[in-house]
Amino acid sequence: MPTALPKIFLKYRSLIDKALRTELSENSNPAPNVYQMLRYNMGWVDPSGIASDGKEGKALRPTLCLFACEAVGGISRQAIPTAVALELIHCFSLIHDDIQDKDEFRHHRPTLWTVWGVPKALTAGNILRIVADMALEKLHREGVASEISLQGVQMLTDAYLSMIEGQYLDLFYEGKNDISISQYLDMISRKTGALIRCSTTIGAFIGNQDEQAVASMAKFGMSLGYIFQIRDDILGVWGDEKNTGKPVGADIKRKKNSLPIVYAMSTTQGVDRQTLHDIYGGDDLSNDQVSIVLEIMARSKVLEYAKSLADLHAQEALNELSLMDIDLEARSEARELIHFLLERDH
Amino acid sequence: MPTALPKIFLKYRSLIDKALRTELSENSNPAPNVYQMLRYNMGWVDPSGIASDGKEGKALRPTLCLFACEAVGGISRQAIPTAVALELIHCFSLIHDDIQDKDEFRHHRPTLWTVWGVPKALTAGNILRIVADMALEKLHREGVASEISLQGVQMLTDAYLSMIEGQYLDLFYEGKNDISISQYLDMISRKTGALIRCSTTIGAFIGNQDEQAVASMAKFGMSLGYIFQIRDDILGVWGDEKNTGKPVGADIKRKKNSLPIVYAMSTTQGVDRQTLHDIYGGDDLSNDQVSIVLEIMARSKVLEYAKSLADLHAQEALNELSLMDIDLEARSEARELIHFLLERDH
Repeated sequence: MPTALPKIFLKYRSLIDKALRTELSENSNPAPNVYQMLRYNMGWVDPSGIASDGKEGKALRPTLCLFACEAVGGISRQAIPTAVALELIHCFSLIHDDIQDKDEFRHHRPTLWTVWGVPKALTAGNILRIVADMALEKLHREGVASEISLQGVQMLTDAYLSMIEGQYLDLFYEGKNDISISQYLDMISRKTGALIRCSTTIGAFIGNQDEQAVASMAKFGMSLGYIFQIRDDILGVWGDEKNTGKPVGADIKRKKNSLPIVYAMSTTQGVDRQTLHDIYGGDDLSNDQVSIVLEIMARSKVLEYAKSLADLHAQEALNELSLMDIDLEARSEARELIHFLLERDH
Repeated sequence: MPTALPKIFLKYRSLIDKALRTELSENSNPAPNVYQMLRYNMGWVDPSGIASDGKEGKALRPTLCLFACEAVGGISRQAIPTAVALELIHCFSLIHDDIQDKDEFRHHRPTLWTVWGVPKALTAGNILRIVADMALEKLHREGVASEISLQGVQMLTDAYLSMIEGQYLDLFYEGKNDISISQYLDMISRKTGALIRCSTTIGAFIGNQDEQAVASMAKFGMSLGYIFQIRDDILGVWGDEKNTGKPVGADIKRKKNSLPIVYAMSTTQGVDRQTLHDIYGGDDLSNDQVSIVLEIMARSKVLEYAKSLADLHAQEALNELSLMDIDLEARSEARELIHFLLERDH
């Protein structure tokens, strides 16, 4: 059975869900079919537009945003526009990622480009990105001052640029077998970290413009970003197909620049090193070759290393949390969340 | 010899060029290669990053923006951030368009995806879109009030959504042979019109928040958008390959939803109608079939119709211009521009 979601996710779920559905409703837009595609993408309908109970995502980013806003004493309603924008930007990036990686499934469902073709999926992604911007415009309507709204827009833009630059770095590193751990960490701090960090930062900023509170939530978010991506990389190699939708060794087969392979490439010696380089230098990996890589990883204690790195960031997140001036409930929710991100199996 | 550019383009060229180059400079960004791709896309360098004199575009949108700002009495420097954002959004949309349409050349140069592959080109396009957002953030730094800056951001977001929805409609209409002229006009008013309309509107808005002046520039921009796209559609069928980079009949062969074919489909009768439907209902068009379509278009006076429709919008633009409270020089520049858009051959 998959790891249970901690209660912080349930707390904001209906608020987030309602706001997302409002942004993606069909009212009087000139291209109704594209909103159907986008609702399919959220897991709400099947490809023909009929309501389905496709599994929705965890909505990690909006949850963090609303949490941070309330934790610093703000009103979560005012952070809804940023929460929605964060989730939509995340979803947009996945639509384009799936096109780039030619991924046919996500969460066991056919991806947008698989159902509707690349041109429409690409455009639908771009539309979702703008729907995110439009959602953000509601900040002002929620009573947030122009100056604050404008700074919020800029924070999200910066994070978004950093995210896409990280995606570009990921593509740029493809096929290279000499990526260092620090290059890897820099890449994920952008690709994944930037938006997660922005979630807590912008939430705190909307809730309370106290510089120290915002900076502290930013550090906390950054640590969560590392934990999240490192756990993702662990699941990409050793995850259970039933939960992740991907077979064991999936990221090895796809030659992804993920932590296990970056670490294995940079630390193995002698025959193991040569074998890894030969396998990665050749064409597509066979299942036998995936098994060989898995064996080398076991010998080099790659999983142990990855877990210890995630633990390190969890410790940093806990330290930052202990310095924050937040109430007991928020502190306990945040701790539970860190634990979940470390242990999640989906 | 191609139609000469009217002086309105030369007037703002160096200002626009300098601002664009600043936005796409390489300072301390983590993914330098992508900025090289983007500079290649602007026509400034070859694929290896060496300066080249690849033909730059006309920069219609930023020119219109700066023109409108000055015409209503504003300071063009304050409209530079919006001018730059408009051009970058336009360029971004072309990068993604070329991926969608599998176009290998634009202005006689290989497109981004042809040189660097789809994943990197897609990502580079997304980065360009954010560079546009970041350029816009400078509004505030140029002394434009928060409230005005925020409204400027919203105007551009609205236009951008409309543009992408128009692109989606274009994709949605692909393969249909019963598009009406009014559906076509609605589609181009979004796909092309929204950003051109936004160029004059936002320029006027930055220059002077007078509602009537802004509304008048908006109408003027809308008319220019129609003229621009209708002329584009004319060139796509009857343009000279030396100037357009595309052979005569190119848009017929590609089965584009352009005005000539939409009009021909909806007005021809009898045998010609049947022939058109048979040809368009089949597979890829042979050159002989393109010639047959061209003959039918000649019989149905399609070119004459398209020109008269462009003239109609030119008349509307001139009417709007005559109602504006602008000086003689601006009026003369605008007239010259309308004439150019009607007659341009590239």
